[in-house]
Amino acid sequence: MGGGPEAPTKPTSKGKELVLAVLPWPKAQCQAGIDFLEKEFDHLEVQHYYSHYENGKITVDDIPEGLPAKASYIATLFWLPSGPDNIPKTKLIQFFSAGTNHVAQHPIYTDSKIPLCSANGVHGPQIAEWVVMMDLVHSHSYTKLYDLQKERTWNQRAGLQVSDRVGKRVGILGYGSIGRQVARVAKAMGMDVIAYTASPRKTPESKKDEGYIVPGTGDPDGTLPSAWYSGTGKEDLHNFLKQEIDLLVVGVPLTKYTTHLLSTDEFELLHKSNPRGTYIANIARGQIIDQKALITALETNQIRGAALDVTDPEPLPKDDPLWSAPNVLITPHVSGGSDAYADRAFQVLATNIRRERSGEKLVNEVNRDRGY
Amino acid sequence: MGGGPEAPTKPTSKGKELVLAVLPWPKAQCQAGIDFLEKEFDHLEVQHYYSHYENGKITVDDIPEGLPAKASYIATLFWLPSGPDNIPKTKLIQFFSAGTNHVAQHPIYTDSKIPLCSANGVHGPQIAEWVVMMDLVHSHSYTKLYDLQKERTWNQRAGLQVSDRVGKRVGILGYGSIGRQVARVAKAMGMDVIAYTASPRKTPESKKDEGYIVPGTGDPDGTLPSAWYSGTGKEDLHNFLKQEIDLLVVGVPLTKYTTHLLSTDEFELLHKSNPRGTYIANIARGQIIDQKALITALETNQIRGAALDVTDPEPLPKDDPLWSAPNVLITPHVSGGSDAYADRAFQVLATNIRRERSGEKLVNEVNRDRGY
Repeated sequence: MGGGPEAPTKPTSKGKELVLAVLPWPKAQCQAGIDFLEKEFDHLEVQHYYSHYENGKITVDDIPEGLPAKASYIATLFWLPSGPDNIPKTKLIQFFSAGTNHVAQHPIYTDSKIPLCSANGVHGPQIAEWVVMMDLVHSHSYTKLYDLQKERTWNQRAGLQVSDRVGKRVGILGYGSIGRQVARVAKAMGMDVIAYTASPRKTPESKKDEGYIVPGTGDPDGTLPSAWYSGTGKEDLHNFLKQEIDLLVVGVPLTKYTTHLLSTDEFELLHKSNPRGTYIANIARGQIIDQKALITALETNQIRGAALDVTDPEPLPKDDPLWSAPNVLITPHVSGGSDAYADRAFQVLATNIRRERSGEKLVNEVNRDRGY
Repeated sequence: MGGGPEAPTKPTSKGKELVLAVLPWPKAQCQAGIDFLEKEFDHLEVQHYYSHYENGKITVDDIPEGLPAKASYIATLFWLPSGPDNIPKTKLIQFFSAGTNHVAQHPIYTDSKIPLCSANGVHGPQIAEWVVMMDLVHSHSYTKLYDLQKERTWNQRAGLQVSDRVGKRVGILGYGSIGRQVARVAKAMGMDVIAYTASPRKTPESKKDEGYIVPGTGDPDGTLPSAWYSGTGKEDLHNFLKQEIDLLVVGVPLTKYTTHLLSTDEFELLHKSNPRGTYIANIARGQIIDQKALITALETNQIRGAALDVTDPEPLPKDDPLWSAPNVLITPHVSGGSDAYADRAFQVLATNIRRERSGEKLVNEVNRDRGY
């Protein structure tokens, strides 16, 4: 086990309960979150250990043997003690990742009932910003203007073909925390919002976002969409895609059902429904889009363009034709990054400690059967 | 007078009042607006003439002599008949531009009382989009990612230094229609908004936007800012600039007072107040910023960067050092363009015809003494 930059080994203070935080950020980067936690709960003490994941291998600061056994709460991104017997006192494990698929085979997942919670929701603001930015970069022809700046050329014609967002329609495929924040910003820009989810959301209660929400963002009550579509069949999806969508945001998880969810038929449908052209933004997983069909749709102007933070495969090989397909903008799976990430995940943990103590329903608790 | 693409000369239908529209867009591009007007007001008939402005010379389709004398309403961008005597029946002249400075010496402006109205407000959405886009392009390091795409290089590190907008502060210098729409979108992204206007706005009534507002956009009641600063003195301005601003939006008109409003002292102040660095977006006029001082502030990292749609002078000469100053993004005065422009200006005209008929206060009426 290689050491990180800081690895203080200290006994737990008397009378304090232990929060064991094993995280891939140096302590300094977690300090604000740690301070918040210790101030909010004066019965708690946080001990921080640095973990690192590279090339399939996890390295962690030396955690004293027996320390996990004292932990009331564990905060982690991927590290776990070897089994539930090692953490008899642990009331809650807070993952700092959006999902917990990466530990679904671990005995703590399969053989214990310790509540596991995800940090779902902490990515909403930054990924929504990425979507909005890319849609604007496209609709304002900004990449052309940027190229002209590098040539020191003042050419107004290059920038005057703008179709602003007022009255345009954004269709959000997968109305989770990211989609809801896209909706909030899009609505403020004057767009119409329509949503799609696998399960129907007919009642006000079912429309609510039950997960963690960064304060002041998102669509907590699910009231922003002017129409809400649902289903898991092709026909349901096609009914949604027929709604003259200007910006289609792909925000569904990758499953067997969603693999190549958007392919030749869907691009044809989008084109028929909106001859102005749909712009597609994918911030979910590359495999959700049939990439070969996408390139054809771009080359034949069936769709207006695509902004892709995810590709199939990743990294995208240097000779992949996607790099230079017409009207495609690619970023290397970075839209989830934010310097507020750790702070926000600590907020999720604080919420859960508060709820666990008062006996309330935890936020983002993973349903082990469902898998998320 | 050179002819435009279409110049139908037809008599006014019996019993109809004439709207004479002399506009720099071919009729097809105005058709939606014309149809809307004629449907909304069945006593009106619109006649469209194409005008064109290039190299200081206005060319207009041949307008039959005597036709202006029949016009109840005139819609124009820069054309005007030679004097008020030519338009005895005209109840209202609707300019399709944000200001009317360009006709301030014309006898119709100086020697008549015919109400003149501007199209102030029609630029709000597209210019606000430009501001938001540029702030995001900067904060998400998008230009680096774009360069990497052209090299077909997948490099995550280039895109992971994102500081998202949640909790950041936007300071809006000049809280008009553009600033208010920036505020709406910024707020939706989780930002704090503070405003600055020359005159104080202490009462709810004075905070309202009395101009034309694109429906569903802006801040009609002026309730979005958490604080509202005002004044015309250096000290007032400095008090505003001290508020730890992350994004400073320059949206004031160019006057003697606002020339070089932002210079060495102001950049120093911004730096002292926010060592993280203020990002400046100028969508007003180049001369409001002392460009030499700006370059120094950029070179010394006093400010985080600048997005400029306007420069001093325009076009910016090829050898101007501004083109390649650090962290500067320049576009060639294009942020006001939108394919919805003509349609929106027709909406302003429709509003004013409605109000003129019912005796209500006109929207965007120019105060000839004040000059806007």
